[in-house]
Amino acid sequence: MREYAQIFQGTAFTSKSPKEVEILNDYLFCINSKGMIEKIVAPEDTVFQDLLDVYQGKENFHRLAEGQYFLPGFVDLHVHAPQWAQSGTALDIPLYDWLNTYTFPLESKFSDLAFAKNVYEDVVSTLLANGTTTALYFATVHKEASLLLAEICAEKGQRGLVGKVVMDDPEQNPTFYRDADTQTALADTEEFILAVKELAKSTKQGVYPVVTPRFIPSCTEEGLKGLGELAAKYDTYVQSHCSESDWAHSYVQERLQKNDAFALNDFGLLRDKSVMAHCNFLDEDDADLFAETGTAVAHCPISNAYFANSVIPIAHLHSKGVEIGLGSDISGGFSPSLFDNARQAVMSSRMLEDGVNPTLPAEERGVPASRITINEAFYFATAGGGESLSLPIGRLAESYAWDVQIIDTKIVSAKLPIFNEHEDVNDVFQKIMYLVRPENIREVWIQGDKVHSRS
Amino acid sequence: MREYAQIFQGTAFTSKSPKEVEILNDYLFCINSKGMIEKIVAPEDTVFQDLLDVYQGKENFHRLAEGQYFLPGFVDLHVHAPQWAQSGTALDIPLYDWLNTYTFPLESKFSDLAFAKNVYEDVVSTLLANGTTTALYFATVHKEASLLLAEICAEKGQRGLVGKVVMDDPEQNPTFYRDADTQTALADTEEFILAVKELAKSTKQGVYPVVTPRFIPSCTEEGLKGLGELAAKYDTYVQSHCSESDWAHSYVQERLQKNDAFALNDFGLLRDKSVMAHCNFLDEDDADLFAETGTAVAHCPISNAYFANSVIPIAHLHSKGVEIGLGSDISGGFSPSLFDNARQAVMSSRMLEDGVNPTLPAEERGVPASRITINEAFYFATAGGGESLSLPIGRLAESYAWDVQIIDTKIVSAKLPIFNEHEDVNDVFQKIMYLVRPENIREVWIQGDKVHSRS
Ligand SMILES: [Zn+2]
Ligand SMILES: [Zn+2]
Repeated sequence: MREYAQIFQGTAFTSKSPKEVEILNDYLFCINSKGMIEKIVAPEDTVFQDLLDVYQGKENFHRLAEGQYFLPGFVDLHVHAPQWAQSGTALDIPLYDWLNTYTFPLESKFSDLAFAKNVYEDVVSTLLANGTTTALYFATVHKEASLLLAEICAEKGQRGLVGKVVMDDPEQNPTFYRDADTQTALADTEEFILAVKELAKSTKQGVYPVVTPRFIPSCTEEGLKGLGELAAKYDTYVQSHCSESDWAHSYVQERLQKNDAFALNDFGLLRDKSVMAHCNFLDEDDADLFAETGTAVAHCPISNAYFANSVIPIAHLHSKGVEIGLGSDISGGFSPSLFDNARQAVMSSRMLEDGVNPTLPAEERGVPASRITINEAFYFATAGGGESLSLPIGRLAESYAWDVQIIDTKIVSAKLPIFNEHEDVNDVFQKIMYLVRPENIREVWIQGDKVHSRS
Repeated sequence: MREYAQIFQGTAFTSKSPKEVEILNDYLFCINSKGMIEKIVAPEDTVFQDLLDVYQGKENFHRLAEGQYFLPGFVDLHVHAPQWAQSGTALDIPLYDWLNTYTFPLESKFSDLAFAKNVYEDVVSTLLANGTTTALYFATVHKEASLLLAEICAEKGQRGLVGKVVMDDPEQNPTFYRDADTQTALADTEEFILAVKELAKSTKQGVYPVVTPRFIPSCTEEGLKGLGELAAKYDTYVQSHCSESDWAHSYVQERLQKNDAFALNDFGLLRDKSVMAHCNFLDEDDADLFAETGTAVAHCPISNAYFANSVIPIAHLHSKGVEIGLGSDISGGFSPSLFDNARQAVMSSRMLEDGVNPTLPAEERGVPASRITINEAFYFATAGGGESLSLPIGRLAESYAWDVQIIDTKIVSAKLPIFNEHEDVNDVFQKIMYLVRPENIREVWIQGDKVHSRS
């Protein structure tokens, strides 16, 4: 028998396919010293009892209590870490005011490393407490503070993908908050990439630099081209915003005579390791280009209700082969929870399918076949996020990282409405997806290490 | 100086108007022995210091800690109490299956009083823990179990308005779950009204019987007429579902050659004390009739995403003088929290304003002027709910009941993202509305009594 660093026993939910959830009832999960799932053993498997005989009662054997379940940790594909400080505010004002009166002044404060540390430690801890084990972060234009965010992820055990934001166009950005010039933006980005790669050497769960033009409107063409070259040179992740709103979408069309997707591709920014936020206004060709290049969509349903002027046709894009994950988009979206975003993804898709205006006849109101199920939203929050990042995460399967949240359905202060001892496990899964609060997330593990606990 | 039963000191938020929130900064709230707010005293008021001198340090003086705030308790205008047992499940299936495979079989189990007690105690406690101090409940067709729900509200200190559901049409309802016949339905309703009125005599915070035809499709015309007469005879509240979906709306048009609103009115069911759930498909005349009769709309934004085929034009209806409150619609809506529903009310209104289909030009996509702000959603969850029920609740104002939730923004496990000691109190309010979890609701008081505490 192989030796394992740890063994966990319990019932787990994981995506079998985008529409199907697999229930692993009282399985053993055998974790190696690198924090990877080396073997999954069913109760009917012959080694099941052998493993129990050897490991049960030892310190590295963990058995879930009655009413507890494993879920894969969530993968949040779009978080503006500095904006956590304004989460929930100013959502009633127009985007322009939101950016200029709230967001840019706030982000500019991250030149102060003490302030940055305070906010960044809190946002990383908060995401962990909400079950997010991997996060793709926008930091700010500041190289030092962005590196600090990567260091905080490394230290707290979260798998962090972090970008120093580039906004190098002096015409489009406020004097108090932008890169000094294009050359500085590119040099800072390169230094940042090298520093995070250095940090990664000592970070078990992984930490990754991300090339991060804020969005085309805030960057020069020289800057965008330079960033594409850096992404190729260092084979890094790339993130940006793409075709989010009527304004952003038509701004790029007017400036470059093409849609965001083709413009970004021409700058070398659509790669297998690219994740683009929102993408509500992708047309069919844009979507094909995403599928061809392996570029993923970070779907941010809460944020979209405020700033995207529409609901993204996520079922349609997925059917075309585009990789899709969920994003909280703090603070365009107010919630740090991908549970909240998964719920909203389902609701928004239903509203796209049925339409919204009751004075229209039903057949003119919506877009047929747009709805997704809660199973699909779960897939986007977990396995879909992992595929988007091409990392072995988001599934409870062999050769995947042991990134899990342990959900307790029975704690007194937040118990789920389960009144039947023999409740169908599918119904339990749905109740978890719709009703779990951070209180129910008792423990979070990343790469085999416990990183959050409420016990 | 008058003697008060209790005095509370702290900062409170309450609606000044539908669009404006009043901040009462470090005020005193003087509560009489009936649990009503008798006097509210500002710090600059001359009696402020006198009151402090007399009450401070006494057992009946309560001062909020740093980072804590008073909010009015929420008024949930639409809850199916028995459906709490299936909350969060089966939302991916069509309404017909949802009713017949899940909901009716579940509701039929409430003939078993032990099962009913188990679920009803849990749903009332859960709503209290979510800050809901008044709830308008659908129970089931069972007279005894419905009375049990009223008793549980009375005992737990919640202001409960409870209806025994009537579904007396043998053609439209399953044999295993309906009233035996129209006469029995009316006799049971009358007995139920009298029993709850008796219970009310010993219930400080109030408990009220509600005449409750499930919706027109499940009732005979004789039954509806009889219920209207009972409502008039005993001057009771009335609740039902009205013009919720394409199907329900056109069913009534075909059967009665008029819209739900006029049909309900003809049966005597639209009264100042009437609350109708959903109402997405009210036309202009229907809305005028609501305004004239004082009938309120229970807006259930989460449920509507699943079952209403549209977003209700709530800003428009409100501008026409219709009374509006929020409803969770457990379990058509999965969440027991009116915080969640207030958030969704804002998001849904934005989606109605902007539209959802990104392939349409912006100017054809949505319905202008449909958005509501978080202040308005707060108003609907509090003062609007109180007005809908014509009860002195939902505001922190003199002559209103002391129904409050004490929000703690600083508890370690769920602290709000406030990084500035001198954070603008308006921003604090918005963070509360968007980010509070049940954990942050440290205490709930109804009619001067503490009914929930996590301290
Ligand atoms: Zn963003
Ligand atoms: Zn209902």
